[in-house]
Amino acid sequence: MFKVSLLTIGDEICIGQIINTNAAWMANVCTSLGCSVDQHSSVRDEPGIMKSELQRLLSVSDMVLMTGGLGPTHDDMTKPVLLDFFDDKLILHEDSLKQVEQIFIRRGMTITDRNRQQAYLPSKCVPLSNEVGTAPGMLFETNGKYIISMPGVPNEMKFIMDNHVLPMIQRILAEKKYDVLAYKNLLTAGIPESMLADLIGDPYEFLDGGTLAFLPSYQGVRLRIGYSSSSLESAMEKISVIEQIIRERAGKYIYGIGEDNLSAAIGKILKEKGKTVSVAESCTGGMLGGSITDIPGSSDYFTGGVIVYSNEAKIRFLSVSPDTIERFGAVSPETASEMAEGVRKKFNTDYGISVTGIAGPDGGTDDKPVGLVWIGLSGNKSTTTHKFIFGRDRKVNRERSVGMALTLLLDELRKSR
Amino acid sequence: MFKVSLLTIGDEICIGQIINTNAAWMANVCTSLGCSVDQHSSVRDEPGIMKSELQRLLSVSDMVLMTGGLGPTHDDMTKPVLLDFFDDKLILHEDSLKQVEQIFIRRGMTITDRNRQQAYLPSKCVPLSNEVGTAPGMLFETNGKYIISMPGVPNEMKFIMDNHVLPMIQRILAEKKYDVLAYKNLLTAGIPESMLADLIGDPYEFLDGGTLAFLPSYQGVRLRIGYSSSSLESAMEKISVIEQIIRERAGKYIYGIGEDNLSAAIGKILKEKGKTVSVAESCTGGMLGGSITDIPGSSDYFTGGVIVYSNEAKIRFLSVSPDTIERFGAVSPETASEMAEGVRKKFNTDYGISVTGIAGPDGGTDDKPVGLVWIGLSGNKSTTTHKFIFGRDRKVNRERSVGMALTLLLDELRKSR
Repeated sequence: MFKVSLLTIGDEICIGQIINTNAAWMANVCTSLGCSVDQHSSVRDEPGIMKSELQRLLSVSDMVLMTGGLGPTHDDMTKPVLLDFFDDKLILHEDSLKQVEQIFIRRGMTITDRNRQQAYLPSKCVPLSNEVGTAPGMLFETNGKYIISMPGVPNEMKFIMDNHVLPMIQRILAEKKYDVLAYKNLLTAGIPESMLADLIGDPYEFLDGGTLAFLPSYQGVRLRIGYSSSSLESAMEKISVIEQIIRERAGKYIYGIGEDNLSAAIGKILKEKGKTVSVAESCTGGMLGGSITDIPGSSDYFTGGVIVYSNEAKIRFLSVSPDTIERFGAVSPETASEMAEGVRKKFNTDYGISVTGIAGPDGGTDDKPVGLVWIGLSGNKSTTTHKFIFGRDRKVNRERSVGMALTLLLDELRKSR
Repeated sequence: MFKVSLLTIGDEICIGQIINTNAAWMANVCTSLGCSVDQHSSVRDEPGIMKSELQRLLSVSDMVLMTGGLGPTHDDMTKPVLLDFFDDKLILHEDSLKQVEQIFIRRGMTITDRNRQQAYLPSKCVPLSNEVGTAPGMLFETNGKYIISMPGVPNEMKFIMDNHVLPMIQRILAEKKYDVLAYKNLLTAGIPESMLADLIGDPYEFLDGGTLAFLPSYQGVRLRIGYSSSSLESAMEKISVIEQIIRERAGKYIYGIGEDNLSAAIGKILKEKGKTVSVAESCTGGMLGGSITDIPGSSDYFTGGVIVYSNEAKIRFLSVSPDTIERFGAVSPETASEMAEGVRKKFNTDYGISVTGIAGPDGGTDDKPVGLVWIGLSGNKSTTTHKFIFGRDRKVNRERSVGMALTLLLDELRKSR
């Protein structure tokens, strides 16, 4: 197996100021190629610790992916550490300088000396071009092992991974005939983890040396099947046998595979059918529309929506009856229903979804506690409403509301397929 | 300084299936007490690697906080590793058994042998009660250092941290008179990192042993000042001297402190002034409204908005003139201006913000490339429009649009203060 370790650099990670999403992303893409990612390490911007961790991880892996510490300010220590590690010196890299200059021209800004400095790189590295930022990546090879340093800004790291690192790993795996570890994800929605596990039964009866993980999120449970073999092809064959058995038992809840999500699955069906959708959002404040429009090309089936954070807005823009709000309240099946119908008609779409709830932390009562959410789904034939009682956390309640609204729409689309 | 390291155990972390939010939470709370958190390490459920990482982290820290691997299934390896590490054996812990039994009674479920096993703990540990789950935490003391093992389920880990670990760290810091490390964050918006660094100048001239970090995001650059001293009070005094100097040089870009963000800062001023805002979103599809309503109590100043993903919706719901769209296009200062004015009038708010742009990956032309975004800001007196050319990534373009829209509104609110 080709072993990859991750070394994330930065005080902001160590002291918990930001969550290390880069590590998860890098681990995920390396794993999907068949690498074994055994260790992540995060250290402060302290040259001594950085160097000793780099040394340690290199001793237990074939490749170390480093992120962070490449910015233009005094607290960016990665280049000095690499110079020390390889007993190297900086030289000007003309292509990188041109790239940095072009970025500044494109943005209509003047380049500073600080940014020019970023084009000076260790002489022993191969620069990895970064078209979305000012710090290039760097590749070092030492005793048949690899060290790659990338900026910590997520989209810059992703650009360098996608354009340089992942193709390189694929070449290495193909040439050196490592064993590979393959995974496949089955995406489910509309069923809790424990019920899904009961449906699938004892996995050891059919895994045949493979693995199965249950990974719940606010948008459903992801099932990850894993298998290790001498080639991706033979591993994938074993995986499809396992997949077949899972599909026989829980197929009706599986809506997709891979890295798709609910918004992508919904978009695909709406496009296929030539149908459209609009949204009416109260407690989610626009997040549902934001999630639907994550998908490129969503303008083909999403025309828009209304964020109605006040009762007046619900009445004025969605023609919800003041009497309905008066009698049943803004968080009620009656209001949810009129919101969904209202937006569907106003935007002249095939479907309208509404969300109204008490996200918290305030605004709850005994009858209508924080976490109560009503979702309305209006189609050409009928309008249905759905009640949920989530928890006490505002952020989680809003995210779960978006997940459930998408799940209900997907369910409806798959039914009428 | 009291040094804490984190050791997160689990394949799902290593292969990138889940993001390590536990590490950030633990690091953040330990840092806020004045501990120095220098390293996080994440390893697979493999006893050999787990043991050697535990050994290594213990050698460089005063306390190692471990999470994960304490569940009831075969792949949970933390207890065997700790037994091996301390050459210890399991004994039944009666109080823990009672606690587990009570949890099952409360949930109306029958306890299984698997769960009873969780009350068997290494004889050398002090059990740390867990009232929200079935696995107790474990505290080991060895040569004046501490190892604490907790479940990986976030709310169980947090229960044990809040009720046992954090009070213990406070006692240790007080009794043993460790130096503490304090931080303060200054939030800036509307200035790129490199220009901010130029304004502030060489930090070593005024840091006096403290630290200064630049932390850029799509919502501005966060400046983090750090200082280590014998007490939190004396460290904070030193920090305020550094803060003073930074404020003299870059004060006009500093809009807040601490863990606040743009949405919170905007909400505070709007509330103070009794003003309101509404949004008209095209390429952000609802994300701007979603961001404003992240803040509890935002209904005091946010009444809603319209997501106008099609030209027809812009005309119909915001009274943008069809002629304007025809002549200048949907992504133009003219359309942005009419959108912002339209939503302000329709929602009867003091301010209206609009966003219209080409998020990508498709839809760009030579004249109007992917990444072009126009933001309109309409107040009672005037409407302004602002042009941005971001990059090629859809997700980033949308996030930067939200960040800039919030920055422009904040700027306007601070000017008219």
